[in-house]
This record gives sequence, structure tokens and C-alpha cells, in this order.
Amino acid sequence: MRERILSGTLGQKDVEQYVLLKGWVQKRRDLGGLIFIDLRDKSGLVQVVFNPDHSRDALETAETVRSEYVIEVYGKVVERDAETVNPVMETGRIEVLASALTILNKAKTPPFLIQEESDVAEDLRLKYRYIDLRRNSLQETFKMRHQTTRAIRNFLNDDGFLEMETPILTKSTPEGARDYLVPSRVHHGQFYALPQSPQLFKQLIMMSGFEKYYQIARCFRDEDLRADRQPEFTQIDIETSFMTSDEIMDMTENMMQYVLKQVKNVDISLPLPRMPYHEAMERFGSDKPDTRFGMELIHVSDIVANSSFKVFQGAIEAGGSVCLLNVKGQAANYSRKDIDQLTEFVKVYGAKGLAWLKVEGSDVNGPIAKFLTDAEKDNLIERADAADGDLLLFGADKSSVVYDSMGSLRLKLGKELNLIDENKFNFLWVTDWPLLEYDEDLQRYFAAHHPFTMPVEEDLDKMDTEPGSVRANAYDLVLNGYELGGGSLRNYKRDQQDKLFEVLGFTQEEANEQFGFLLEALEYGAPPHGGIAMGLDRIVMLLSGRSNLRDTILFPKTASASDLLTDAPGNVRDEQLNELFVQIRSKE
Amino acid sequence: MRERILSGTLGQKDVEQYVLLKGWVQKRRDLGGLIFIDLRDKSGLVQVVFNPDHSRDALETAETVRSEYVIEVYGKVVERDAETVNPVMETGRIEVLASALTILNKAKTPPFLIQEESDVAEDLRLKYRYIDLRRNSLQETFKMRHQTTRAIRNFLNDDGFLEMETPILTKSTPEGARDYLVPSRVHHGQFYALPQSPQLFKQLIMMSGFEKYYQIARCFRDEDLRADRQPEFTQIDIETSFMTSDEIMDMTENMMQYVLKQVKNVDISLPLPRMPYHEAMERFGSDKPDTRFGMELIHVSDIVANSSFKVFQGAIEAGGSVCLLNVKGQAANYSRKDIDQLTEFVKVYGAKGLAWLKVEGSDVNGPIAKFLTDAEKDNLIERADAADGDLLLFGADKSSVVYDSMGSLRLKLGKELNLIDENKFNFLWVTDWPLLEYDEDLQRYFAAHHPFTMPVEEDLDKMDTEPGSVRANAYDLVLNGYELGGGSLRNYKRDQQDKLFEVLGFTQEEANEQFGFLLEALEYGAPPHGGIAMGLDRIVMLLSGRSNLRDTILFPKTASASDLLTDAPGNVRDEQLNELFVQIRSKE
Repeated sequence: MRERILSGTLGQKDVEQYVLLKGWVQKRRDLGGLIFIDLRDKSGLVQVVFNPDHSRDALETAETVRSEYVIEVYGKVVERDAETVNPVMETGRIEVLASALTILNKAKTPPFLIQEESDVAEDLRLKYRYIDLRRNSLQETFKMRHQTTRAIRNFLNDDGFLEMETPILTKSTPEGARDYLVPSRVHHGQFYALPQSPQLFKQLIMMSGFEKYYQIARCFRDEDLRADRQPEFTQIDIETSFMTSDEIMDMTENMMQYVLKQVKNVDISLPLPRMPYHEAMERFGSDKPDTRFGMELIHVSDIVANSSFKVFQGAIEAGGSVCLLNVKGQAANYSRKDIDQLTEFVKVYGAKGLAWLKVEGSDVNGPIAKFLTDAEKDNLIERADAADGDLLLFGADKSSVVYDSMGSLRLKLGKELNLIDENKFNFLWVTDWPLLEYDEDLQRYFAAHHPFTMPVEEDLDKMDTEPGSVRANAYDLVLNGYELGGGSLRNYKRDQQDKLFEVLGFTQEEANEQFGFLLEALEYGAPPHGGIAMGLDRIVMLLSGRSNLRDTILFPKTASASDLLTDAPGNVRDEQLNELFVQIRSKE
Repeated sequence: MRERILSGTLGQKDVEQYVLLKGWVQKRRDLGGLIFIDLRDKSGLVQVVFNPDHSRDALETAETVRSEYVIEVYGKVVERDAETVNPVMETGRIEVLASALTILNKAKTPPFLIQEESDVAEDLRLKYRYIDLRRNSLQETFKMRHQTTRAIRNFLNDDGFLEMETPILTKSTPEGARDYLVPSRVHHGQFYALPQSPQLFKQLIMMSGFEKYYQIARCFRDEDLRADRQPEFTQIDIETSFMTSDEIMDMTENMMQYVLKQVKNVDISLPLPRMPYHEAMERFGSDKPDTRFGMELIHVSDIVANSSFKVFQGAIEAGGSVCLLNVKGQAANYSRKDIDQLTEFVKVYGAKGLAWLKVEGSDVNGPIAKFLTDAEKDNLIERADAADGDLLLFGADKSSVVYDSMGSLRLKLGKELNLIDENKFNFLWVTDWPLLEYDEDLQRYFAAHHPFTMPVEEDLDKMDTEPGSVRANAYDLVLNGYELGGGSLRNYKRDQQDKLFEVLGFTQEEANEQFGFLLEALEYGAPPHGGIAMGLDRIVMLLSGRSNLRDTILFPKTASASDLLTDAPGNVRDEQLNELFVQIRSKE
């Protein structure tokens, strides 16, 4: 039996050989009594020529062939004439002269073309996902996803980690995002939940003595979706015993270095930079700073604290702050109308407005210039390292609003002004996170990461007196302004964990009901442990240079959590629900 | 900072070195003013000695230590005296003389001991799974599970397969086992289902042009559980385009050869034997024969068709058959009472009784001897190759009952009589399966594998006239009497698939409602494709020599689908259900 050869591997080495090819008709062209077919398989394309002198049968069959037909071709590899060489095509120096053609399966006219990256509506692409996925760019993305998980597994396997599987049918833990629930048929009125992460199980694996665990784990969150969220997503989940946070960060960055080398052939140098959370907020207005460009936030509260501009004064008096961005050399390029648009942009982040100044020669002009003394102007210019032609944009509000709005504005301007080198991979550890966040509405603390995070030892004495200022033994890994993931050391002593639940407002009874099994496990020889979890979908998105998370998931769901291909979710039969002891409530 | 060393790696090479160890107290012994602790970590055990001459502090701390305390020890590796060498312990030629001891975490007295494989009730083991998992045999099982998946992935990666993830939140397809359902919060009254397998998605991946897919995939079936079933289980899921069934079987057996070499250092020779389904049933009374021993079913219907023993005659006249097992040399070892117990055993499989004969010298004795002529006896002896001392056991009934009962009896006797070489790994392909099975109660055909299986080409003309005799292009892989998994070629042409749904009694409307997306995809250039799926849990069970599937799953569920550790499933809050538009029905 002849063995099939992949189209994309053919080249001059194969000239004069007879080959058997199988694949899809990418394109058919009829020209001067000949037929040319671009044959596509998973490896790429090759041109097949049907010539009446060589095989009239094959030519006649080729006349019936349409785009996306699945065919089998037997023929001879020949060199192309110099003038027909296609330098764009990898196999463009050769073609296959067909001796025989078999149609393996026909195809209706596809709803959109495969060879073009044309702008097809996403709903149509998702309904016909199996056609969309035939496109070269998606084929490449999923090859890269494969390579990425393969590199991660190889690294962790070689580092002594065991890959282990944790359950998908688990217990609902209301602390966190909304759970997907699964009614039990055996236990009346009871439900499983799909895991938001394997957090508790991986801690239990440490208590089981395995010491080094990982899993490429499916996780689920029933939340309203944004462009970068999916109801089910995949997490690189890691947990270790007896390691310090430094050791876990070292291991992780070695892993990422290996992945980038394997997948992108990019070298990143270690150790990765680290930045405390507060510094990230102050310099970049973000807990996941994109450090591929500058234009950092410049703090000027001290300079303008006594200015006659009420907005500045008011913000500072109310405990807030004033920052500026120096948009170098762009004063002349931003009209009032342009700046009005930036103002609308920052309002989305809660800012009330956007003050600005332009440095023109030795003058400083703009609506707020009149409120500033010469000394204030000079000090601003000096602090901002401003020069002729610079545009200064001001945020003045509660610090959280200033950071959020000016941090977002910085990113927007960075993109607009092409300040970002898209070939850079800028990793950054953000450390020294607050352990707790206070919810003003609910008047209680919530865990900033999750309620099993260990506080930094030197802050332990503040757990009762000043819980909001206790730092967590936690670390997030950021790449190019995206959070890839984060981790922490965990409470491994029962009294540590009890204390945290107490600060979070749990009664002992509530803590026991929800997490009793974990609390009990802490009393039977739990080792010091910690780990990290990273979003695989997002890593693939960044490595493949894509901006839509759905393009990194084989069969993604829409913003309303629907699968347009299979039409899920769907109706089920009454008997199915009866067996599960549930019924549908009316919508009201 | 001193680096921690794993206990189990210590040996004579380390003598006179100072080492830092971390782990669990397996055992503490006090002897003549000294304390001995067996320190356990993931690598194994080492003995630590606390000696007042060396460190009084460490000794005093050691006095407070109990089993399963987590400790850190610093000390010097020393050679043991000849008389204290422990040859059973891997590190038994050395011990560590402790200079310092820190208690990292305390432990209450565990509910059962780790060092013993004592017979603890399974419910208690599951509730304290994290303690159970510390036992050496389970540690080894999960290392083997890791090695098995690693070997499978390495093989498939190197063979050009892409690892791809299919959704867990999918559409309910009533054909098959019972689905686990997940109510949608966004789409009122609609439900997702957890996949029973990624069958349809992997076929869609082939239609997406990827050609070689695999996934170590979680699957779900809401069925009443037996010892070898779990509500969630893991499947090695493979699909390929353009490959013949022979090529898929070749690839699979090469993979299994690689796995056995990597994990067990066992060589298996290829190609694996193949046996048609009908032959397996006729020779072994089983579609998954254990070929590690003989004692095959011997068909004697022709010999006894006219005997005066009514049971034989009746079975044959009703279209059934008569078979015997020749239990070599066991006539004297099976009393009437023993045979009565075997009779009870076969009754479980629907047999009405168990006729028997003993060959004693040149005589044939037993209750049915008087119904047989000398010629019949001689023919039986000749056919059964029976000799003095053999026990002949007869099944006579509908063939399905004969196969089921005698096949099971064969296995039972094989174990009882130690006929099975437990070191053998006997693989076998079972081929030529029937495509359809007729359900007498429901008066319709069901797909024997699943409703996407392709019929054998030469049987296609029987699809209308004689569907029950159409063979499937399907193959199951059997190891030591267990079905590891199975696969098939799939229907890739719309009309093939339509025809199969028609024979299965689907209206066009029903087929479209449930599988419309697949039927449509078949019309847009679906390649010939096929694959296989194998149960990872069961493979690990067989490789690790275990008999309980739960021992191969990290956090398994009980027969009532409960997780005794986390207490799942559990109650959820009313708000959770309200958001999902479901409510609980009363139990009636």
C-alpha cells in the first residue's frame, strides 16, 4: 500500500517521485484546458495540475471538484517552470502532476472562505467553527497551544512534579465567584458544583504527602462574560510543599523562560523583575503594569496642594491625589476635540474630568494654566521633565480613581502613539499584595486573593488591629500588562486559618460547614505549602499575538455562554429533570 | 541557605555530610535514652537518631514529637553499626544523627496508621483520603499514573498528534447513558450536559482539518455505580483522519507497547493478536477474553443433540447450544457440595443449572451419565480431550446464557485453580463487532458501540434487509480480560449517517434536533476519520496490579456518588437555585 505524504512537506527533494496526497481543495483554477488545484492538509498547501496529456480521467474528475471537497491524488512531483514558481508558497517551486484523482467526500459551498482572513461575523464563524478552524491562523494557534502545554508539562515533569487529576464534581463553596451547579440524582435536593479552581484539592494533595503537584485543569465560573472571560477556562495549576515563595517564583520563571524558548524561540533573562503592589499602583496606576513603555504616572499632589484650581485642592483635601502623564511631544497633535475624547475615556473609570496643559516654548498653556502660579508651573515642568511640545494630562480624585483612570489612559495612549514594542515579552512579578480588601457596601473584609492565603509574618500582629494593612505572602505574574496568574503560600496551621476566617467574619460554625474538611486536615500533619495558578488560555493568547481569548479555545462560548455550534445549553426532557428532583421555575 | 535533601535518596555516598531534611514522622521509638524517628517524605524513609551527647535540645524537642508531625531535621549522615543495619529499608545502611529539630506542624493521632497496609474500612479511608494517600502503595500508584499519562503523551506528541481540549459544558444527547445536567443562569429552563465522551467534538476536530487529535479527557456518566465505575472517569481520547482501522490499531498497539516498556519495563511483542467477536464468544464466552489461560468452551451440541437428557435436547431444539468446560484433573477435588456452589454461581448469569460428569478411570460418572449412550460419552471425551480425573461442567441454554454463564465460570475457576499467570500482559484485539443490537423489550435496534460507527463495507447491502448481521468497522482492545477501550471508523458521509439513524428508528426531525450540527458538518468536507478511546483509570489499575478502580483515582466517589472527604454533593442556598430558575421537587 502506498503511504500518504503530507502536502506541505513536498519540495525539490521529491522531484520525479510519485506521491499519494489526501486533503481538502483550497482553490480550483481552470486555465487553458488545464485544472490547478491547491490541495490543503494539516501541513500546508501544494499545487496539483490536471493535464489531459497526463490523465484525462483525473482531469474529468477534477472538473467536478469544488472548494472544500476532500480528495485523494496520486501523481508525480515536478519542478515548476521558472516563470510559474510561486515564491509566497512554501512548496511553490514544485507541483504535482496528477495521474489519478478520487473524491473522498463532497462539500457544499462553505459559508465563508477558508483561504482568506476575511472579516466574517463572529457568530457565523462560531456556528461553523469546524470551517473556521481550517484557516491557517487558527491551525497555527492550536499548534502553539499544543506546544505550550507540552513545554509546560516537560518542564514540570523533569522538575519532579506529578500530574494529578482533581474532581470536576465537587462541593459548592459560596465564597468566590458564582458556581455552576449539578443536581444529584441519588441525593435528593443536593448539588455538586463545578470547581472554580482546584485550590482546596491541591492543598489536600500537599497534606497527602505528594509535595509537587501540577495539573492543566479545567475551571468554571458562572459569571457575566467579558471579551477575556469564558465560562470554562484552563489553568496551569501548581502546588508544592516545603518551598518558600522565592523558590516558587524561581521555579515559575524558569518554566516561563523554557516555554518562551520552546514555543517562540525567544530568550528572556532571569531573574524577572519584581515590584511591590503599591509601587505598581503608584507608578503605573495598575496592579498589572505594562512595562514595555514609560509614560509613568507623575505624582504632583505636593506641588499643587495649594493651587487655586479647586479640583486639585479638593481632591487632595479629601485625601486623594493629583497625578499627571507627560505625553512627550504630542501637544500639537492633540486638539481640544481630541482631548475631549480622552476626557470621555477617563470618565468610564470614574474620573470627573481631565485637566491638561501644553508646554509651548517656555510657556505653559491650557484652561488650568491661569490657576497656577509661575512657581507651580516651574515645579510641574521640572517634576514632569517636560519640554517644548509636551502634553500634560492630569488626574485628580480619590487615589483609586486616579490610578484606575490614569493607568487606563496611559495604556490607551501607549497604543495610540505606538509606544509599545509588540515583540517584547515583559514579565513582572507583583508582590506584597494586601491580604484583605474592605467592601464598603457589605462592611466586611474579603480575601484579596482567596481565603487560604498566608499573611506576611511580620504583619501578623496587625491581623486584629489593622487587618487592611496586612500584606499577603502572595505574588502575581504579569506579562505585557496582562495578569498571567498568581499564587501564594497557604495557611498550614489550624490557628492561622481560624484567625483569617474570623477576620473575614465567618463564625466557627460557618467556617466548619463550608471548609470543615480542610480545617480538620490542617490538624493531621499539614506541611508548609504554596503554589501558583496561571491562565493557559491567556498565555496562548499572548504568545500567539491574539487579542481575543475565544481564538485560543477550540470550541468557545459566546458572551451569553452559548455554544453556537452544538446549540448548548438546550432543552432537556421532563424525565431527565424528574429523576434529578428538580423542576424549572417561571422566570419571574 | 541550606538546601533540603530528600530522605529516600540518602546513602553511603552521603556519610559524614550534614543534611537538611523535611517530612513526616512515620514512627518514633525511645530506646536507652536515645530517640529514633523514621522520617518520611515523598522519596521514602530515613532513620534519624537523637542522642543527648550530640544535641540535648534536639532530643528534648524529639520527646514531644508524635506520629505524622511535620518536622525539619538538620544532622550528620553516619554509617550504622553492622548489627543495626536494616536490610529491608532502602536507606538502612545509614542514619542521620540530629543536631537540630524544628516542629513545622503538629498532628493529632491519625485515625489509622500510615505505615501499615492494615484493613481499614474504606469509608474511613475515603473520609481521611489525605492520610490514606500518604501510604506507600498509594503513593506508588499515583506515581505510576503520572508515568502512564506521561508515556502516552510522549508517544502521541512524537507521532504528530495535537493535544486539544473539548468543552465540559456541552449539549445533552439522550442516546447513551444518563447525562449529568447543569442549569443555565442565562438561558431560562435550559441545561448544559457534562460529556459522556468527547465523541462528537473529536469528530468535529477532524472536520476542522487537524487530522490527529488526542486528549486525556474527563468524562461523566450518571449511572448506578459498580466497583469498576465512577461518575467521572478519564479517557485517553484519540481521533485521526485518513487512517484505516488497521493503521489505527497499529498506532494504538505501538503506544501500548511503549507504555508498558516505560512504566513496567515489560516487553510485549507486536502485532497483537486479533480475534473476531464471534470467535471470542464461542471460545471464551466473553467479548473480552482473558487469554492468560486455556480451559476454553467446548461446543458439544452436535454430540448431545439426540441424548435422552431433556435439558440438552430442549436447549438445542429451542435454538440454543450446549458447551462444556474441561476442568483438568479436578474431578477428585470438587465434591457435590462444591459443584452445588458453582451451580449457584452460574444461576446469577441466568443458567438454570450446571450438569457435570467426572472422568474416573475409563468410566464417566455423574448424575447425567445415565442419560448418555456409550457413543455419546466417547465422543464427549474425545472432543473435550478428557482424561482420568477430569471434571466436565456443562452449560445448556440460549447461546447468550451459555456464553455468559460458562464464560464467567471459566474466569472463576481460572482464579480458584491458580491457572492465571499474574505477570502476563495478554493484549487482544476483538474485531468484527455487530453494528447493532436488538432490544427485545423496546423492539428496536441500538448502536452496539455508538451511533456514529461505520459499517463494514461488504455488509452495507444488509443495512435494510438484515441489520442485525451487519458488522461494524470497530475494534476493542482487551487486556487480561478487561476491556481497555475501543474505537471505530466513523460515518463521514451524510447519507451513511442518515441511513444508520433511520435503522435506529430516528425520524429525520429527531436526528436533526439532536445531531443536526454533526449532520450538517458532514456536508462541508468531512474527511474519512476514526479513532479510539481507552479508560486511563482501568489501564492504571491493571498496570499497578490493583483490583479497585477507586485506588487509581485521587479523590474518588463512593457507590452512591458521594465524596466522603468534602461531603459532596451538598445543600446549596436558595438564592443560588433562584438564579438558575430551578427548584427542588419533593421526593414523591
